[in-house]
Amino acid sequence: MLQDLDLSVSLDKETYKDRLDDLTIRIGQLQRQARDAGMPVLVAFEGWEASGKGTQINQLLQTLDPRGYTVHVAAPSEEDKRFPYWRRFWNRTPAAGRITVFDRGWCLEAIDSLYRENPDMDGFERACREINAFERQLADDGTLVVKFFLHIGRKEQKKRFDALEENDNTAWKVSKPDRKQNRQYKLWRDAAQSVLERTDTEFARWHLVEAEDRRYATIKILGLFADALQTGLRKRSVSTQHAATRKTETSGKGRKTAHAHLPEDMRASILDKADLSLTLSKEAYADALSHWQQRICDLGNALYRERIPLMILYEGWDAAGKGGNIRRLTAPMDPRGYDVHPVSAPNEVERAHHYLWRFWQTVPKSGHVSILDRTWYGRVMVERVEGFCTEEEWRRAYREINEMEEELTQSGVVLVKFWLHIDKDEQLRRFEERQTVAWKNWKITDEDWRNREKWDQYKVAVDEMLFRTSTTHAPWTVVEANDKRYARIKVLRTIVETMSQRLSF
Amino acid sequence: MLQDLDLSVSLDKETYKDRLDDLTIRIGQLQRQARDAGMPVLVAFEGWEASGKGTQINQLLQTLDPRGYTVHVAAPSEEDKRFPYWRRFWNRTPAAGRITVFDRGWCLEAIDSLYRENPDMDGFERACREINAFERQLADDGTLVVKFFLHIGRKEQKKRFDALEENDNTAWKVSKPDRKQNRQYKLWRDAAQSVLERTDTEFARWHLVEAEDRRYATIKILGLFADALQTGLRKRSVSTQHAATRKTETSGKGRKTAHAHLPEDMRASILDKADLSLTLSKEAYADALSHWQQRICDLGNALYRERIPLMILYEGWDAAGKGGNIRRLTAPMDPRGYDVHPVSAPNEVERAHHYLWRFWQTVPKSGHVSILDRTWYGRVMVERVEGFCTEEEWRRAYREINEMEEELTQSGVVLVKFWLHIDKDEQLRRFEERQTVAWKNWKITDEDWRNREKWDQYKVAVDEMLFRTSTTHAPWTVVEANDKRYARIKVLRTIVETMSQRLSF
Repeated sequence: MLQDLDLSVSLDKETYKDRLDDLTIRIGQLQRQARDAGMPVLVAFEGWEASGKGTQINQLLQTLDPRGYTVHVAAPSEEDKRFPYWRRFWNRTPAAGRITVFDRGWCLEAIDSLYRENPDMDGFERACREINAFERQLADDGTLVVKFFLHIGRKEQKKRFDALEENDNTAWKVSKPDRKQNRQYKLWRDAAQSVLERTDTEFARWHLVEAEDRRYATIKILGLFADALQTGLRKRSVSTQHAATRKTETSGKGRKTAHAHLPEDMRASILDKADLSLTLSKEAYADALSHWQQRICDLGNALYRERIPLMILYEGWDAAGKGGNIRRLTAPMDPRGYDVHPVSAPNEVERAHHYLWRFWQTVPKSGHVSILDRTWYGRVMVERVEGFCTEEEWRRAYREINEMEEELTQSGVVLVKFWLHIDKDEQLRRFEERQTVAWKNWKITDEDWRNREKWDQYKVAVDEMLFRTSTTHAPWTVVEANDKRYARIKVLRTIVETMSQRLSF
Repeated sequence: MLQDLDLSVSLDKETYKDRLDDLTIRIGQLQRQARDAGMPVLVAFEGWEASGKGTQINQLLQTLDPRGYTVHVAAPSEEDKRFPYWRRFWNRTPAAGRITVFDRGWCLEAIDSLYRENPDMDGFERACREINAFERQLADDGTLVVKFFLHIGRKEQKKRFDALEENDNTAWKVSKPDRKQNRQYKLWRDAAQSVLERTDTEFARWHLVEAEDRRYATIKILGLFADALQTGLRKRSVSTQHAATRKTETSGKGRKTAHAHLPEDMRASILDKADLSLTLSKEAYADALSHWQQRICDLGNALYRERIPLMILYEGWDAAGKGGNIRRLTAPMDPRGYDVHPVSAPNEVERAHHYLWRFWQTVPKSGHVSILDRTWYGRVMVERVEGFCTEEEWRRAYREINEMEEELTQSGVVLVKFWLHIDKDEQLRRFEERQTVAWKNWKITDEDWRNREKWDQYKVAVDEMLFRTSTTHAPWTVVEANDKRYARIKVLRTIVETMSQRLSF
């Protein structure tokens, strides 16, 4: 998740000023509503040293009625250290209708368990379990838990440390552990990333914030905070209404208001970062194809020899070229070693089971390859957008899917996940081609055109999916697919490169 | 939990026959209702080797319509072993309206991680997390998960192995690992106990079964199974009704029907096992008191020196003698080293927080002692019985409390929990004494008399509490308190003995 953030984003002064004014009014209103509803709100600011947590907390406080909040520093006092770890957090949980803000959250112990030469996996598991228990217990009781992680790059962090040290008044702010964090940037980032993944739950979401540009970070934090308050208030009021009307209300309202306060241009889009102008010439393609197909052939033998199971997941826009891509992949493979599973709407038997059930049947045995043309991610795309499941269900699904994928990789399965990305114009071009060229006509249906009308809704869903489920165990690869040749080679190369970390071939 | 089971229980043939007929009819009805409601039911039989899992599964199946169930052996086939661990369980989860029974559940890997000389704590944590994820995902989707653990003693197991080996036809059934389990009985029991604790959740409860007497075990399993089906069906129908009527309905019906099918005399009662005839003469008491109070004094110094925090929790019937007991405990202690926290109904500030919040304030710092006169267990006793919280809330509380206590002990706190037990006659005698003796009069209120009328409801709640929250980290001690002298000495001795495992004094 952290690596997917684009840290170059920024906001000009004028836009900042406008949005700040707007958000200040809205958060004031929402705070009063939360107070009247008796909803406790617990906010944590986590992130890098020198990422600006203090500044951002101040900004947030300025939007709030000072009679309604309390701020705590999570770092333990000498007195705190004589008590059990969780006491200082529990004692400071907010009362009904109040807001408590923590400068640093309750995750430091978990991060520290991995931020060392010999990671303490037992301690990591335990700490994450305790974090989840703390947050679940509060959420079950009606507390809104909002967690921010402020992310900056290694160079930026060093620059900030240097600037602080240059000034005699602030030099004391830079400690040895701070400098060490900068030197061991990657180690700390991976530790934090693992904790974020394990503790990003439907009852306590992480909000990652690009924090190099102060103004941008402020507006994003305030926007996300306003959204979180609104969602929390909505859930609260719904849970006192009729259960019968619940499903429709939450899913209905959810789609309309989920991001009412975060300006559209600030919703981090992984898709928008893809460079769709990438192409490959016919000649370069022919060379590359024979090279990488030979490697795929070797790979198949190697993973059979070493008994490693491989799952390749294809997702992408309609007409993004999944079919042709899969054909280039399977061409050099031994047909006894792989299966292709085309996934469409579940049949009657499948509908009688948990939505993940049918996908467990596609898991390959050791030494074999499963290729899925569409996957379990349908839950958070088509089922979300078309309302085939409730909001509660698709929100829960991110964690369920991450749990499933971690279990698979834990068991030794290698997972490679592709999103084949094209833009809206390219899709139109391909749709029209399919409609006019006789032998491509079978590929296009009315449903494709209907889906196309919901492109923007799908894009929001895809971006959230890429973001929430790109884990250390199973990262997504976005494939720039306006040029089919480029896309095919990128897929082959990615598979070979991923596997070569596991295999000697 | 396992140690609390009384394995000597049994059932005569006639009662068995009657109850079996009755339960067969009821389970048949409930199975048809589950089928019509489309509720999937997943049943696991876990337990010792030779505890009779096969026999009991057969008994259960005979009550069922054979068109509605499937039985699986959880042990992996050679083919299964080539796939990820969870695949064989996922693939065999029941479809809507069907029942799947597993001979052995999905917990073996977790138990094995501790059943070895050097326990694999990392593997244990991961395995339990995966078990919880599996069960939560299914339960969230509407599957009823029912788990039985069949418990037998070490001698009984050996007797059964011997009997099997004596017969040439069955000798093959006893394997080397079976015999090893018997030799290392305590190691396996503790491993199983830890897994039971970690995986006993509100969405997938464990049902422990005394399995030395076959007839008793059968009736208990069938009774529990019928209750589980009924509860599952009720939840299912409630969740499609109005949320507004939900709280009252569940809590109301819950109290009436929770154990409709398990005969009253088969509900394992920890309280009933207490021998209330235990007494101590005045002389013996005087000697013991001075001995143990001296030890308590030494203890206070030792734990201060070694910086160990100690929490002593008192629960018990009204008039069980908590106050006098606490006075004898604190008499020899340095007043700077301990606090006594009397706990009554929460005040306005406390009510604005999570119910556990106020108790985190009573956690002692290192080297100090906190004594609680009534505790967080109010949630699962008075709040449950009086309907001050919903059924959902008190059911959730067992896990919340176990999580909190594990966090405390994990941080180094030593927890000692006492239930001061008297019988109903003794309580009446004391109540009447309080009412007639002028200087004891302040101790008795109308509320005490009202509570007394609900003795039976409280007893059910107390028994479930003792059972579900007596963990390896923080076991309960039931104190036989009809004789106050006996009770006082037992408390002092228990505290000293528990602490001396941690201290050298």
